[in-house]
Amino acid sequence: MGRELVSSNKSITMRSPVVKSCCVLFLILFLSRHYPVSATKKILNPKKPCKRFILYYHDILFDGNDVANATSAATANATKLGNTDFGKLVVFDDPMTKDQHLLSHPVARAQGFYFYDMKTTYNAWFAYTLVFNSSDYKGTLNIMGADMMREKARDLSIVGGTGDFFMTRGIVTFQTDTQEGTKYFRLKMDIKLYECY
Amino acid sequence: MGRELVSSNKSITMRSPVVKSCCVLFLILFLSRHYPVSATKKILNPKKPCKRFILYYHDILFDGNDVANATSAATANATKLGNTDFGKLVVFDDPMTKDQHLLSHPVARAQGFYFYDMKTTYNAWFAYTLVFNSSDYKGTLNIMGADMMREKARDLSIVGGTGDFFMTRGIVTFQTDTQEGTKYFRLKMDIKLYECY
Amino acid sequence: MGRELVSSNKSITMRSPVVKSCCVLFLILFLSRHYPVSATKKILNPKKPCKRFILYYHDILFDGNDVANATSAATANATKLGNTDFGKLVVFDDPMTKDQHLLSHPVARAQGFYFYDMKTTYNAWFAYTLVFNSSDYKGTLNIMGADMMREKARDLSIVGGTGDFFMTRGIVTFQTDTQEGTKYFRLKMDIKLYECY
Repeated sequence: MGRELVSSNKSITMRSPVVKSCCVLFLILFLSRHYPVSATKKILNPKKPCKRFILYYHDILFDGNDVANATSAATANATKLGNTDFGKLVVFDDPMTKDQHLLSHPVARAQGFYFYDMKTTYNAWFAYTLVFNSSDYKGTLNIMGADMMREKARDLSIVGGTGDFFMTRGIVTFQTDTQEGTKYFRLKMDIKLYECY
Repeated sequence: MGRELVSSNKSITMRSPVVKSCCVLFLILFLSRHYPVSATKKILNPKKPCKRFILYYHDILFDGNDVANATSAATANATKLGNTDFGKLVVFDDPMTKDQHLLSHPVARAQGFYFYDMKTTYNAWFAYTLVFNSSDYKGTLNIMGADMMREKARDLSIVGGTGDFFMTRGIVTFQTDTQEGTKYFRLKMDIKLYECY
Repeated sequence: MGRELVSSNKSITMRSPVVKSCCVLFLILFLSRHYPVSATKKILNPKKPCKRFILYYHDILFDGNDVANATSAATANATKLGNTDFGKLVVFDDPMTKDQHLLSHPVARAQGFYFYDMKTTYNAWFAYTLVFNSSDYKGTLNIMGADMMREKARDLSIVGGTGDFFMTRGIVTFQTDTQEGTKYFRLKMDIKLYECY
């Protein structure tokens, strides 16, 4: 390629250092983009998501009577491995609000499940979908990960999205906002997206 | 860099506007590729997947007797939260076919689970793997998301893949193709991959 | 752009073939990076992960008595669909070690669940989080996929990560290392990350 350019113009021999440098640079740029790479090493800054918002998750566990208010129910009971509900599996369809008030207008639903998975302390694991259907957003975020309840903040993975969140990925940071016995708890979910389309 | 090039050739002073422009462009291109970015904003067109195919999912729920035909079974029963099977959890190993016929040769298996998670209507949540082992494809697609059954079409996330689908991501669009009581249902799954390797 | 450069210097007419070629190349490079793409086709080499390590997973199933040693428990029992535990759902909090010894110091915990999902043979499906909290790594890896136990090696998807594994993706290859009745089994997990940040 460089050779053809050169032969097309005699005076170019004078410019050859510049031309050569150009060609080398082109080659580097070109190859670095198109050469098979073994794996990608991108630099993402955890402090600079492309989109971020905070929502509150409200879970009211069904106790057998409160059908009207309950938003979740245990479909498998705790096993006898320890005394911290190991194996208890709860399915939920919980409201998500912009502030901490349970009765605020929900901006999304959280649909999925969690279970407790430690025999010495309370510790949970979540997989769920945030379903948005408002004037702000239409679409879903799919989330999974460990909820290490004894830690102040814990990160779960946003592994995909649809609609307004088409193909997104990110991190949700959980913080327990309140816990009222076994009946009600509220999580602050700090939603940070790092791949936006 | 630009300065070194210039000093190597006297006649280059004449060309400096071109050289400067070149250098600036190089710098822009170079920096835009290698500078730490806060988050990626790529433009993907939902209408132009890199791979797409449609398969049909057949689910025959075990009723206690039909071991030979059944392909799924409820491992946790519905709770008493509402009358729409809230909490019922079904594990499946279902055939996937290219057309709507249950008895067509399956091109993949769908292995995973779904559960119902709404107390006022039927609504489900899925997590499963499509296992391909044919001359066309060998490998798996891993999928999760909400199946909002009352909507005509609903999107779930393809969160990963292996084998011929190594590291892929995408969207599966569900449409209920038929529903025969609690015994059999068929979903049309429109599989669209947006990251192909 | 090319035209402006040209008009700024008379002697440039001589150089026009080079300048034109340069501009065309610039344009190609520029557009190929910034033009809306329908879907990404990257080339990743499955044999060259950006990070790789092997860990062993130890599962000791609770039999009703061994609370001290057990690390997992069945929260939903097998259904009557076949004789290979179809539907049996096990929640676990299992130690991960660098070598095959159960009593080696665990470098991570595997928290999640598996269930059996085939009526003719043993076949499982996993979703779990590897929780690292050591001097080597702090953070989590989130994993899901089919564990086709009758095959020597099977691949699951690493769909996300947090902490030191921020936003990672990859593949885990399972190999059954030992199986001692229904009480204990050990899996070799070959963890390969292809997107590192």
